[in-house]
Amino acid sequence: MTPATSQEPEFLKALAWSPEGLIPAIVQDVETNEVLMMAWMDESALRKTLETGQTHFYSRSRRKSWRKGETSGHVQIVDSIFVDCDADVVLVKARQLGGACHEGYHNCFFRRVDREGGLEVVGRLVFDSQTVYGASAAEGSEPSSA
Amino acid sequence: MTPATSQEPEFLKALAWSPEGLIPAIVQDVETNEVLMMAWMDESALRKTLETGQTHFYSRSRRKSWRKGETSGHVQIVDSIFVDCDADVVLVKARQLGGACHEGYHNCFFRRVDREGGLEVVGRLVFDSQTVYGASAAEGSEPSSA
Repeated sequence: MTPATSQEPEFLKALAWSPEGLIPAIVQDVETNEVLMMAWMDESALRKTLETGQTHFYSRSRRKSWRKGETSGHVQIVDSIFVDCDADVVLVKARQLGGACHEGYHNCFFRRVDREGGLEVVGRLVFDSQTVYGASAAEGSEPSSA
Repeated sequence: MTPATSQEPEFLKALAWSPEGLIPAIVQDVETNEVLMMAWMDESALRKTLETGQTHFYSRSRRKSWRKGETSGHVQIVDSIFVDCDADVVLVKARQLGGACHEGYHNCFFRRVDREGGLEVVGRLVFDSQTVYGASAAEGSEPSSA
């Protein structure tokens, strides 16, 4: 459950941000337990996540915050947030609408290393990325971990 | 399943390493689906993980590879490895012996953000860290994500 009060969330002070002011955020599907994606949050993105109950991240390539699903509608509704022992990683359990991956898969880890050391696609395709993102798909409008 | 051949694993070339030559590695319990920890791998640690079938990581603070469980015996037996869409994060599904967290919990995400924005301990304590690590516990002999 996300904080319901308007007071300053105490745990923000406990976090060990990177020199760039970022923290890795793992998103796990609260229903299926799949690891959906990993992306980065700055403090602003984490605050917006807390305030809105939907995940926000920081794009290192575009140098700004973005809301997951802002283009696709495939938002992540936050269920709960966890902090690891070193306080330098957060785990967000969320309900995923549509698919987490901008390539159309339910989660971003849709390729598995096979016995020969190659990659095989094993993920579940849940939408057509060209239809959802159109021309912007090629531009990586929702970089999962950029 | 990890690569069984001695040939060069092709997928290593596909990975997008950080400027420091690292990649975040999320470890998920293949039995319980818990997210156990996140740590960093350099190419050497990933190769050792593939070769031995046990997770190895790179400690940024100690600037060297380490085998998970080398002090505690709480090794992670690799089941399968996944790569995300941007090829800049790997997900390792593994069977955890003992506990993943050097603080004695089964996983490192043992603290949950509560409604007031504080942190409450909700994790499952599975061993006594002082007994397992002794004096070295204070030194963070097995930093989960350092």
